[in-house]
This record gives sequence, C-alpha cells and structure tokens, in this order.
Amino acid sequence: MIVQLKRSASQKDYDTIVKYLEDRGLSVKDVRSDHVIVFGVIGDISGTDPRDLYAFEAVENVTRVSTPFKRASRAFHPEDTIIHVTPNVAIGNTLFTVIAGPCSIESEKQLDASAKTVKEAGGHILRGGAFKPRTSPYSFQGLGVEGLKLLRKTADKYGLAAVSEIPSADLVEVFEEYVDIIQVGARNMQNFHLLKALSTASKPIMLKRGLSATIEEWLMAAEYIMAGGNQNVILCERGIRTFEKYTRNTLDISAVLAVQELSHLPVIVDPSHAAGRWNMIEKLSHASLAVGASGLMVEIHPDPANALSDGAQSLKFDTFASLMDTITALSSSFGKRLS
Amino acid sequence: MIVQLKRSASQKDYDTIVKYLEDRGLSVKDVRSDHVIVFGVIGDISGTDPRDLYAFEAVENVTRVSTPFKRASRAFHPEDTIIHVTPNVAIGNTLFTVIAGPCSIESEKQLDASAKTVKEAGGHILRGGAFKPRTSPYSFQGLGVEGLKLLRKTADKYGLAAVSEIPSADLVEVFEEYVDIIQVGARNMQNFHLLKALSTASKPIMLKRGLSATIEEWLMAAEYIMAGGNQNVILCERGIRTFEKYTRNTLDISAVLAVQELSHLPVIVDPSHAAGRWNMIEKLSHASLAVGASGLMVEIHPDPANALSDGAQSLKFDTFASLMDTITALSSSFGKRLS
Amino acid sequence: MIVQLKRSASQKDYDTIVKYLEDRGLSVKDVRSDHVIVFGVIGDISGTDPRDLYAFEAVENVTRVSTPFKRASRAFHPEDTIIHVTPNVAIGNTLFTVIAGPCSIESEKQLDASAKTVKEAGGHILRGGAFKPRTSPYSFQGLGVEGLKLLRKTADKYGLAAVSEIPSADLVEVFEEYVDIIQVGARNMQNFHLLKALSTASKPIMLKRGLSATIEEWLMAAEYIMAGGNQNVILCERGIRTFEKYTRNTLDISAVLAVQELSHLPVIVDPSHAAGRWNMIEKLSHASLAVGASGLMVEIHPDPANALSDGAQSLKFDTFASLMDTITALSSSFGKRLS
Amino acid sequence: MIVQLKRSASQKDYDTIVKYLEDRGLSVKDVRSDHVIVFGVIGDISGTDPRDLYAFEAVENVTRVSTPFKRASRAFHPEDTIIHVTPNVAIGNTLFTVIAGPCSIESEKQLDASAKTVKEAGGHILRGGAFKPRTSPYSFQGLGVEGLKLLRKTADKYGLAAVSEIPSADLVEVFEEYVDIIQVGARNMQNFHLLKALSTASKPIMLKRGLSATIEEWLMAAEYIMAGGNQNVILCERGIRTFEKYTRNTLDISAVLAVQELSHLPVIVDPSHAAGRWNMIEKLSHASLAVGASGLMVEIHPDPANALSDGAQSLKFDTFASLMDTITALSSSFGKRLS
Repeated sequence: MIVQLKRSASQKDYDTIVKYLEDRGLSVKDVRSDHVIVFGVIGDISGTDPRDLYAFEAVENVTRVSTPFKRASRAFHPEDTIIHVTPNVAIGNTLFTVIAGPCSIESEKQLDASAKTVKEAGGHILRGGAFKPRTSPYSFQGLGVEGLKLLRKTADKYGLAAVSEIPSADLVEVFEEYVDIIQVGARNMQNFHLLKALSTASKPIMLKRGLSATIEEWLMAAEYIMAGGNQNVILCERGIRTFEKYTRNTLDISAVLAVQELSHLPVIVDPSHAAGRWNMIEKLSHASLAVGASGLMVEIHPDPANALSDGAQSLKFDTFASLMDTITALSSSFGKRLS
Repeated sequence: MIVQLKRSASQKDYDTIVKYLEDRGLSVKDVRSDHVIVFGVIGDISGTDPRDLYAFEAVENVTRVSTPFKRASRAFHPEDTIIHVTPNVAIGNTLFTVIAGPCSIESEKQLDASAKTVKEAGGHILRGGAFKPRTSPYSFQGLGVEGLKLLRKTADKYGLAAVSEIPSADLVEVFEEYVDIIQVGARNMQNFHLLKALSTASKPIMLKRGLSATIEEWLMAAEYIMAGGNQNVILCERGIRTFEKYTRNTLDISAVLAVQELSHLPVIVDPSHAAGRWNMIEKLSHASLAVGASGLMVEIHPDPANALSDGAQSLKFDTFASLMDTITALSSSFGKRLS
Repeated sequence: MIVQLKRSASQKDYDTIVKYLEDRGLSVKDVRSDHVIVFGVIGDISGTDPRDLYAFEAVENVTRVSTPFKRASRAFHPEDTIIHVTPNVAIGNTLFTVIAGPCSIESEKQLDASAKTVKEAGGHILRGGAFKPRTSPYSFQGLGVEGLKLLRKTADKYGLAAVSEIPSADLVEVFEEYVDIIQVGARNMQNFHLLKALSTASKPIMLKRGLSATIEEWLMAAEYIMAGGNQNVILCERGIRTFEKYTRNTLDISAVLAVQELSHLPVIVDPSHAAGRWNMIEKLSHASLAVGASGLMVEIHPDPANALSDGAQSLKFDTFASLMDTITALSSSFGKRLS
Repeated sequence: MIVQLKRSASQKDYDTIVKYLEDRGLSVKDVRSDHVIVFGVIGDISGTDPRDLYAFEAVENVTRVSTPFKRASRAFHPEDTIIHVTPNVAIGNTLFTVIAGPCSIESEKQLDASAKTVKEAGGHILRGGAFKPRTSPYSFQGLGVEGLKLLRKTADKYGLAAVSEIPSADLVEVFEEYVDIIQVGARNMQNFHLLKALSTASKPIMLKRGLSATIEEWLMAAEYIMAGGNQNVILCERGIRTFEKYTRNTLDISAVLAVQELSHLPVIVDPSHAAGRWNMIEKLSHASLAVGASGLMVEIHPDPANALSDGAQSLKFDTFASLMDTITALSSSFGKRLS
C-alpha cells in the first residue's frame, strides 16, 4: 500500500498516520521527494481497506500494490487448476468443456430432448434453470426442486454432468444433492452471504461475472468461496453492461486472458447471455476458443420461439450440433481438446 | 409493445408472429409504411419479456411502450405515498427525514454516543450495520444478531426508529423483530429471492439502487416487493458506478426527479456512499434537499479514523450537528419540513 | 510514480528498469517488502506516460502519485480564479453567472426575443449556436458566421456578453472577433489540435466536459489550453453518459465539488444538456447553486416545440424568468451573488 | 417513429402534435389501446431528431424504428463493400488485410526497419503517427508533415500502402498527398467538422470507434463521410471504455458481428489500443479472425521500451512475424485469405 499525503500535511499529521499504521502491525518506508510526501506501507494488509485511510484529512491518495485475493491468485498457485466435476468430466488447462441445455427447465420432454442433443453432439454438462431470477415478478419463475430432480434424472440418463443456478444460501444442501456444479448467477456475484454458504459446499461452484463487475471484484468473490475451504471455482465470463444496446451485454473476450494471467482458476464463456442473439453465438464461441477459454456454456431449446425464457438467445438443436462440429474441428489449432 | 420486422420478412413470417401473439391473448394493430413493417401489440403483456420475440428470425426490433411496473407506478397511484415507520416517524411528501448512525455497529458505547448525537441534532432514524457485506472475506463482518439487539435497545433509549441491512432471506423474521425499516443493500437489489421474502414482511423496506442499475430496474425491484403485498417501499439513491474514480460512486441527483415523475414512492439520498468522501456530504445533502428528496441517510462516527468500516465517508459528530442546522434552516425554502 | 515489479522479476530486470529511469534524469527509492518489489520514482515525470513502463515485461503495475496537470491545479494556484469576461461580466469565486439563450441561432427575431428575456430576467451572457455539431448529417447545421454576427449585434444591443461553440481550429480568429467566450463542445474536449489553437486565443475558453471523460482528463484538457498561455478557462459540467436513459445524460453534481478541490478554475453547470428534459432544469439549477457552482448555462426558446434543435430541453421565457427569480432569492443562502 | 402520449394527454394535445407532424409532411397511424395512446409516424424523418418531440409536454416516449443511417446501411447496399486502397491492396469481404507499424514515426531508421518487417512478414499497409493526439501537452507530439513524407517514402520503398491519423480539417490536402488511407482517431469520431471535410476527400477513410460510442453513433459518423460523396469508409473497432482497468480498453468483439449485420462496410480490429498490453495481442488477433473481421491494425516497434509512445502495447518484430505466421495458417479455417 502506497500512501500520499496532501501538500498541506503537517509533521503531526504524518506522525499520527504512521502511528495508526504501526498500531496495526504495519511498518512504513518513506519515499518522499521535494514535492510529494509518499510512503510505502509494509506488512499484512489483507484485513485493511485502503479507503479507510481517507478518514485522515491529510491523506491525498492511497494505492494498493498487492492484489487483495490470495487463494485465487496465480502468484499463490502457479499451475492451472483442473476441476474434476465427475469421474468423466473435468474443466481446465487444455480441456475445452461444453455445457449446454435450456435456459429454464420447462418439462421432462423438453429437457430430455435437449440432453439427448447435448450428448450426441459431444457436449459434457447439461444446464437447466430451476429457480429463475427474472427481472419481473410476473414472469415464469421456474419449476423449483422438481426441476432439479428432473435435471439430475435426465443428466444421469445421458451420462452428462449437471449444473443449475442457486438462488439463495438456504438451498445449498438441496443443490449439493442434485447437481454436480452449483452456479452463482451474475446478479448474485456479490451476495456475500451466499458466497460464504458455498465456501463449505461439497460441489464445485461456477461463478458468473457480475453485470458491471471488474475482474478484481470477480476474483475477490472467488476468494470468498475459497477462503472457506472450497477451492473448486470455475469462472464464467457472460458479458458486461456497456452503453452498447445492440447486443444484450458486451462479451469481454480479453477478460479470459486477464483471468488467466491473474489466476489459476479455469474460465469459460457464456456467449448466449453475452450477445443475447442466437445468430452471434457460433462466431463468439470460436473467438472464445481462440483466446484459450476452458469451455463454453450455451443455451439450446427445441423450439426457441416458444421458450418460457431467453428464446432470443437459444440455439436450435441442429445449429448447436453444427457449432459442436466446428468447435471440435478447430480445437486442436488452439491447443485444446474436447475430451 | 411495438414490433418491427426485417425488410426481408415474408408474409408467412408475419402471420406466424401474429398467431404467436394472438395465442397469448394479445391483438395486433398494423402501422406499416412503405419501407418498414411495424405493428403494435395490444393487451396485457406484463408476463411477457419483449426480448422473447427476437427468437423469431424475422424480428428486427421490439420496443415496450408501457412501463413494466404497475404498483410502483405513479400512473397507478398518483398521490405521493407517505410511509409511517413508527407512530412518530414517517417518510414522504413534504417531510424531510434524516437517518444517521455508524456504518457498522462496533460496540454499545460507539452506538450509544452516535444515537445521542442523532437525537440531539434532530435526526429521526438510527442506522447501524450488523451484517456487513464486505468485498473482502478478510474484513470485519459485523456483530450479527447481537448488533441488531443493540440497535433496537439504543434506538428505543433515544426515541429513534431503527434501520439495518438484511443479508439474506432466512433472516427476515429476526429483522422484523428488531428494526423498523429493513434495508436491502445495493448489491442485493436484484436478489429476487430476498425481494420475494420481503414482499410479505411486516416492516417497510428501504431499497438501495444497484451499482449500475437503471431507474426502471430499480422500480422493477420495488415492484417485486409490492407484488407480494408489502406496499411500503422507500427508495434510496446511493450513487452509481461511472468512469469517475475521484468519488467512490457518482451521485445521480436527477434520479430523484425521475423517480418522482415515474413513481409515488418516497426517495431519499445517501451522500456518504455516493461520494465516499466526508467533506462532500454537506453540499450534496443541500443538493438533495434542493431537488426535493424525502430525506437523507448519513454515516457518522465518534472517531472516523478508527472506524471498522467506511471511516473515509463518516462525519464527525460536530460536523453532523452543523449539517442538521443548515438543513433545518434551508428546508422551508424548498417546501420541506424536518418534523 | 510508484512501480511494482512482478514476483518473477530478476535482479537484471530491476537494474534495466532503474537504468532506463536514471537515463531520463529520474531517481529511484526502493520500498520493497518480503513479498513485493516496489519502488518510488522521483523527479519531473510531466513528459512521461506511466503506461510506457509496461513495455518492460517485468513491470506489474505503475501508479502515478502526482497529478498530471500543473497550471490547472489548485496546488499550483491556491486562490479561486475569477475570469473577467467583459468589463461588466465575470465568472468565479462568490459570483453566480447565468448564461442563457437558444441552442441554435435561427433568426434575428428569435435571438432578439431571447436576449431581451435574458437581460430582463437578470442573466449575464447570451449563448447561441452558429455551427452546430449535429449527430446526423441531415439535420440543421447552423447559420455559420452570419449567426455569429447576429449574436454579437444582439448581445451588444442588450448589454450582454456572448458565447458560442467553435467547431474547428481554423475559425479561432473569427470567434475572437465576434464572441466574448469561445466554447469547446463536449465532443471536442480531446480535440487536441483545437485546444492548442485556443491556447493562444485572446478570449476566455469555456471547456465542456466530454461525454465519458474523467475529471482528470477534463482538467488535462484545460491544461492544454493553459500550457500555451491562455489561463482563462471556465469549466462546464454538462452530464456524463451512464446506463440511465430516462435522462439524456447524468448530471455529475459532485464533479463541481471535485473540480473545486483539484483546481482553481471556475466551474459552471449546464442542466439543459445534462437532463435533456426542460422540467428538470429548475431543480437541477437549485442543486448546482447548492453545491457552489459558479453559474449556469441554460437553453431557452420562444417556442420550444418549433425549435430547430434541442426543443425538449429548452425553457420557455416565462419559466426562465421564474427560474431566475428563485435562483436570485436562494443565492445568498449559499454564499453566492448574481451581480 | 412511434410516439406514446402521457395518460394525462388531452385530445387537444393529441391534435397539436399530429398537426405539427403533418406540417412536416409526415402522417400518423393510431395504435392506441385502452390504456396507452400510441401512434406511428410515417414518412421521411431523416432530418428530424425524435427527441425534439419531447418539447411537447404531453409526450411520454418517442422511439425511432428506422435506422438513422442510410448509405452506411446494409439494407441500402446488401453486398459487402470492398475498398480498393491501391492497385495491390484492398479491404473487405473474404480478404484479411494487415496494417502494422509504429505508434509514432520517430526516425527514418525506426520506420524503415518497421516497414521491412511488415513487408517480410506478409503485411499490407504501413501505419505511423505523424500528428499525435497526446492527452498531455507535455508529451511528444509527432514529427508533423516531415513524418508524413517519411511514411510515404518508406511505404513506397517496400511496396506497402500507407495510413496515418489526421488531426484536423485543414490538413486534408496534405494527407491526400502522402497517404493511401486517412485515419480518423477515436477522439475525433464525432468531430463533425472533420468528418465533413473528409466527405469530399479522394482517399478512403479509416474511422475508429469513439471511446464510448455506440455502434449506431459510429455508423452515423460513417454516414457523415458518405453523405458528402466519399463512400470508402473502413471501420476500426479499437476497444471501448468500461469499468475494467486491467486492460486499457475493452475490445468489443461482438461489434464486428453487429457491424456486419447492420452495414456493408468492412470492419477491422485494433487489438493494440484495445488491450494496451502487447502480450494479449496475438490471441485477440486470432479472436478477430474467428469472428470474421476484415483485418487488423497492430503496433510494432524495434525497441518497445524506448518507444516515444505506446511502448506497452507494441509488438517486437519477431513477435509480429510469429503472429503473421499463425494468422496465415488459421485464415482459411475462417474463410479468409491474406492476399
């Protein structure tokens, strides 16, 4: 942490702040020049918010130099983490893992047809929403636990792993029972109560990036889960909010590269939510493969126009199969393999 | 809802979409011109997400014309809502209600001194965080239920109402027991599971605006609470995320005006979180009064430099007292009264 | 400037970077701890872009600690600058100066009626666009030099000063002849060629904040003008782009406070462009006065519905007169005076 | 254009607005339902800003349904445009054209070495800045016309085409003389005076996307150039400003897809400015190829650490050569060819 004082700061101001830091077990190294009073703060500041120092009127500027996350950091763990989801399915390093399925689980028939397609096309994990976080209270809210049971049963039938989004901390046990990966939605990325509950869960967590979260905030949310003991976190880039409205969100493709520099955790891409337009999904999937993502999460539906949610961004089955073909063909050019 | 088709759309495309809408009880009125195929959709679309229509390839653009919220809307309820928090404290219309207290409840001594200051300076409601949503898992997380009990006891001692932030749905009953207003934090504004749980709570809800939420999304979150039966929602503007980093967030002062046009619900301002700098709070409070906000929420602390959270944005007691003096003196010029 | 190296940095990396800096006349003070290699860079870095150091692979992070602007900085010039526009009109410190007039100059009749209203209501400066930066090439583009002549003549008739927006560097002499303040539009805030041309102009410059500019970038644009010799820069906050679409832009009211902390230059507010809605202008003007702005720029029109541009945000004459009445009545409460 | 009136609108309000529209040669088709008064406006609205209607107090909402650009629109010109830059170099359709060179032209030696590398590696166009738009007035500002002459001479020596950024309208003739493509920088995207001057230029224009511009605003800027007669516009996506600070900007890779849907103009990607980090450039280049961009613009430098600008994002020569090898190898998989 680097602290810069105002030009108007007195020696007494300086002494007070130094004492405050020393009382917290930190030490100070002065780097002042003729014009600027600056010092470095040395020691463990993981429990300190640099902003707190602004409570001292004499402080001009505080800059953190170490990253606020540890367990999620590549400096802490240089090798790529590979997450073993089931005996047959893993995510990370040179693997390219494909998650697909409907936005919402609507019926056994719809889910079964989707799972069959995922399996036959070469996908690995079945997705399906059972508790839907809809922005309108008047929209379809999901089948709840019945949906989870259906997801488990269908995934097992086709030899797929299963993932679904958890809405709140009190459902952790239920999710542990029925899914292989517990998803945290973008709007819950900083629901710290939920993150803490998941930090002791027995299943891997897929953590979507918040709508306007920075990469550091995203990795800090992963740190919350890891700090409690659960080291199995998969990150999912799903687009961020920008001024552009032609697409639903803006896919931040360089975030994949940034995460790989900063962290050892695998990062996958959800082009469906990023673009919100089914016709962009294939090319954005190719781009995700090209930058080295660890996989994709794609929405598919037997009849998008009659989907109860997210029809606009769902692929038809044959389009998905064709996407899987091109992904498979291209993967080795980018050092990835689908199984 | 207005639907525009692509130039390439065929009559069959048109018929399919019209049938889809009619099957949902809606009717269609054509407004096409020579160049553009456009039609209006008439009927109750509250359960429909306009985006769903993009699942039809022939659709170019869908625009909603009615607001997606009803109970929160001024069209639905033209008069200003006044929320009666306790027999002595209300929020709305010409009242200007002041909420103050520490960011986190740290000790009985700290809270008692804060409450005494709030009361003597003419404030109405005591705030204090018991469950703190900290971005780092290594930061102080709050006193929990013990904090809530302390808040209740101290508020009662000084004849103040009490407000605190709820972290998750399973704590609704506890909060109903100890506070007069249940606060939903900015990061939980779209935690729909929590909003639903609060929609049947017996206490008013103070709903903070999300970090990058639009006003429509914010009112839609209020609608979630109201749809379940709880009509007592107070909105709180606390700054939005922008590119500007000199301030912690950017206070959107025109949002107060926008909410007053669109909704009958009272809206207050939290200048502490908006600016993140204690020395801006007085002037931003004056600005809030000037645009007609229904009140303020301000952080105060006996010793900001040693606060366990948010010291940088907390007022010292004498600065708060002086703020209350200027607010009281100015209020009548802006058609407001503090009691 | 504080430089942090990667954990993987070797002593040779360190030495190379230190030599690079020393070759540029800078010196280095080490503040490394056990975990992090960090050093401060001391000396004049005004010609150096901190980003350049990222060209060294071993660099993790570079943080500037001094502000990049000097002449615009309050540290350099602690007293408020007062800009003398004409013998009768000044801007800054305790003055509250009102600029008003039509968005575009459309005709002598329209401008004359507007100027009469401005003068009678107590305004100081007449605004009027002659070269309009319209987003569509098919929209009205302004009367050009004829418009400027009309502006001069009309301002003189009513004893007002005159301001208009300059579209490009080759028109500086023409603007110097006809106006008292040369306005730089938001879209030209980083048109450095234009800023340089204005840095030797004989008239004060009113510099609007760019649509998504930070305060630092804005002050850096002022520095461009001042570096060439023209110290008379008036800043104008006109709203920034955010995700909120109810208002045209989002008025950043705390930017007024931030500028006053960082700079000695006067800052005024343009609520017309910020809100884009005439019915918000009065209250936003009061808020601007409340935070201590040095004045306002407001669009007025005799018949907003038939204005050739910006009708939606233009005040009718009687609404403007009433705004001036309330501003005048409130000004002394906020330590300001209109003349 | 679809217009919605407020619930409080009277028949007289309705009639006034309809008359206003009819006076402008437009006609109105009513689509009102029981709850909402809505009508479509039919006719040529290209000279009308929909916002103008908000000047009528009874208007709730105005929505444009046709795109505001015509010449730039794919609806107007369904086939991909191919821009013939020189007899040997073209951009568009299945071509993948590579532009490379230093950020700033610093010396003949530096430029010559760069051009040699570009040519030998298989690139097509030499870039080099002669007039640099630096955010600080104290930074290196470029060699000016001498730089342009050097660029021309060096490009000719190696059989490359040449591109450089123009700072202002008065230099159009000079640029026409020395370069093959005139570049408009991101900060000048809405410098309408410059766009108009370029609309009659004899050379193709490369139009960079503004820092926080929407795709519609970008295409509208292209329309400005095309409206004056110059149909040869190449679009360049160079990253947009977001909250993420790890990268300099955020590459909006889906913008390439959006532009291809909305327009017939070619769009290339500048990964150097988008990421601001040289080590991300190769993978972002692959992603650009994967989504079907028409080419790349990449910064290279013989000695990035000693570059006078943008060293952090410049590739060394051997890294560039290796990038060209992988691009060439991958291109046919994505239906592109480099010559």
